[in-house]
Amino acid sequence: MKKLPSSTAKRSSCSVATALDVFGDKWTLLIVRDIGLFGRHRNKEFQASKEGIPSNILANRLKSLQEKGLIRRVPYQNNPPRYEYFLTEAGEDLVPIVRAMAQWSAEHVAGIRLPKKVAR
Amino acid sequence: MKKLPSSTAKRSSCSVATALDVFGDKWTLLIVRDIGLFGRHRNKEFQASKEGIPSNILANRLKSLQEKGLIRRVPYQNNPPRYEYFLTEAGEDLVPIVRAMAQWSAEHVAGIRLPKKVAR
Repeated sequence: MKKLPSSTAKRSSCSVATALDVFGDKWTLLIVRDIGLFGRHRNKEFQASKEGIPSNILANRLKSLQEKGLIRRVPYQNNPPRYEYFLTEAGEDLVPIVRAMAQWSAEHVAGIRLPKKVAR
Repeated sequence: MKKLPSSTAKRSSCSVATALDVFGDKWTLLIVRDIGLFGRHRNKEFQASKEGIPSNILANRLKSLQEKGLIRRVPYQNNPPRYEYFLTEAGEDLVPIVRAMAQWSAEHVAGIRLPKKVAR
């Protein structure tokens, strides 16, 4: 399996800092959630998620996730071109982290419950 | 154990989104790393970490982490007042997430290795 290049580490060689260099923001792991837990694969599905991701941020994160090899896209329509997005193996390995975050919220934030898709 | 208030969820009631509302940025979990994995507790120790956290961001994140009940501070000097920071129970529960992130990088990014303090 091809690894992300060492230039991925922006701030230090620390494994934690490098992970945050890749997905340390409010939106990237929501796309991983949408694909990996909720089975959403299309631009419109991501935009329909209730957090209301701005379209420019969505486009930026999809591009960045592809460049890093965490997602890949597959055309499902040609004219105009439209794509579905899937997690690569490196992207799939983020799903347990997303689950752990969900469990943390459900345990520590009032009113937050774990949906079945996360809890399995 | 007191939970974070439901107002913590900024964008939706999704457990994943709520977690990212709390710590979805490049710096917050580095402070959790410093305290929980590296035994750093003082302002100067955080600033000495090799990622070079800007002092205004450090002050902002320490304040926010305290307000959310993820860290608590204990004075170690009175004049001028100086504090040491420790993880609360909710903060300690972020450490496994930090470890999982570290393991992800070590597995998927070239040249990133897992330090002993993370790997235990």
